[in-house]
Amino acid sequence: MLKMTNDLKGLISLINKRLEDFFYGDQPTELYEPIRYIMSLGGKRLRPVLVLLSYQLFKDDPEEILDQAIAVEVFHNFTLMHDDIMDDAPLRRGQQTVHEKWNSSTAILSGDVMLVKAYDILLNARGDLRKIIKAFNHCAAGVCEGQQFDMNFETESTVTESDYINMIRLKTAVLLGFSLQLGAMLAEEDESTTKALYEFGVDIGIGFQLKDDLLDVYADQDKFGKQVGGDIISNKKTFLLLKALELANDEQKNTLLHWLSLTEFDASQKVEVVTHIYNEIGIRELTLAKMNEYFEKGFHALDQIDVPEERKAALKEFAQYLIDRDR
Amino acid sequence: MLKMTNDLKGLISLINKRLEDFFYGDQPTELYEPIRYIMSLGGKRLRPVLVLLSYQLFKDDPEEILDQAIAVEVFHNFTLMHDDIMDDAPLRRGQQTVHEKWNSSTAILSGDVMLVKAYDILLNARGDLRKIIKAFNHCAAGVCEGQQFDMNFETESTVTESDYINMIRLKTAVLLGFSLQLGAMLAEEDESTTKALYEFGVDIGIGFQLKDDLLDVYADQDKFGKQVGGDIISNKKTFLLLKALELANDEQKNTLLHWLSLTEFDASQKVEVVTHIYNEIGIRELTLAKMNEYFEKGFHALDQIDVPEERKAALKEFAQYLIDRDR
Repeated sequence: MLKMTNDLKGLISLINKRLEDFFYGDQPTELYEPIRYIMSLGGKRLRPVLVLLSYQLFKDDPEEILDQAIAVEVFHNFTLMHDDIMDDAPLRRGQQTVHEKWNSSTAILSGDVMLVKAYDILLNARGDLRKIIKAFNHCAAGVCEGQQFDMNFETESTVTESDYINMIRLKTAVLLGFSLQLGAMLAEEDESTTKALYEFGVDIGIGFQLKDDLLDVYADQDKFGKQVGGDIISNKKTFLLLKALELANDEQKNTLLHWLSLTEFDASQKVEVVTHIYNEIGIRELTLAKMNEYFEKGFHALDQIDVPEERKAALKEFAQYLIDRDR
Repeated sequence: MLKMTNDLKGLISLINKRLEDFFYGDQPTELYEPIRYIMSLGGKRLRPVLVLLSYQLFKDDPEEILDQAIAVEVFHNFTLMHDDIMDDAPLRRGQQTVHEKWNSSTAILSGDVMLVKAYDILLNARGDLRKIIKAFNHCAAGVCEGQQFDMNFETESTVTESDYINMIRLKTAVLLGFSLQLGAMLAEEDESTTKALYEFGVDIGIGFQLKDDLLDVYADQDKFGKQVGGDIISNKKTFLLLKALELANDEQKNTLLHWLSLTEFDASQKVEVVTHIYNEIGIRELTLAKMNEYFEKGFHALDQIDVPEERKAALKEFAQYLIDRDR
């Protein structure tokens, strides 16, 4: 993991401290305990950090909007709780998922309450409440749409590059965009500024997901937290696979489709064969180029924002950290 | 079914007309089609009617707040969509439930989007948006708490009368209370008025659920839409059963517990035996008394509201219709 500056560490510890004693509700225990559980599993706290960093472009009192930053983390964890049911995932951050530890009904209902709580925490916001909640709704519906597209892709034979980019934009990137937009809205900035920050976040978010796809195949196993090649083993339709299917010659395509169709196979052999085809086609370079295209587009949006360069340093540094990460 | 006045029929047709061409979203189809489906299944539209009737205590332009009334109906149908998954229910209003017609993942995700849409529709409200959404959050979290309590009761051996009343208050009554509160908030009425209407709705809602419990056993099968005795057959912990278990002598209690423990039985015999014990103990009269206690409490709250009696007529009539219904 790349090193973070003390400023960033300070923000993360501010967030984690507030999360530690955050009150979601009490009775019935079966409803609120799973919320405390999933929120305690940790994670990078990427989204609330983005809210604070965006706000800090304009203001010096991040602790004033800490709760609103946490609303975004609560929303994010609501989506994880429900996605894990749909994906039948046994583990989340190395621990049992909520529907495994309790059951699906509890995970559905606790998730529902989390979404309500996210709105409730947002209500304490300064700024134009109607605008803030409108933007949040737009983002929240988009995240659900992205999850549905992702599930659809599992059974669709032709998924184009633009279908895929649209899916990750909705599923992952719009929430990063909203986090940055929220920070600016809480600082009561004007429409063009909040819009530029939203675009910065969406572009960085798309780049971030492409980096995720890339790391799955090309990470250094010693540094990577998960199994390298996991997406290949599970036939996940990543940017790499879609692009390879698009650009493969007949022989490569037949080999890919053959390995995709096998229900029993040697995992490490599958990873090796598919990675070899990726290398032949130059998928790594193509993905890097696409990723950098989005990162550059994002930084260009950030350039449009009229604040002194030194105020942008922390946000730029954090974005760079997301770009350069090796896990 | 009791007859409704033309005024009430007019409100319901206003609501149904607006619902017919309401736009929830478009793509992906798999996400939005189930919303259109569940909203088209009909139902009494009880909650939006309450919003409009409450608003009409003070104002004469119900069409102005039609969308906010519909937000409550969208929220209600979100809870039905998720509850049906948890209860593994095959049918809703005589049609396939969403998780049966599509699958659980779709029902989870479409439900999530419905909750977001409910917030989004509310945003168009006049009045104090922060107060309105705060009240909605309180209600929405309460409904989830009620559903969790209800699920807990299935495996709990001792559920007291007050546990039960609290459960139905949360699961059913607070949404009726909120509907009435919302109507008054949209008319920009003061705190004491909105509170009195909330209390009226909660009390009527508890009475309404007790009537439901009662009808299950004592309805006239010719008029009742469902199978009389359905709750007895499924061991549902209704007010009637809890009260019977509390007041039964040893012999009656043993008979009840025996029939509750059987996994194979003759359904009509079970209904007959349990109903006979209810009759011996006088459960019907006890439930009627409790129900009337809440209805009277509700009407007392309504009396506190300072508007001319003739403006209250439609709301009182609707409440009376809910009390007197035979199905």
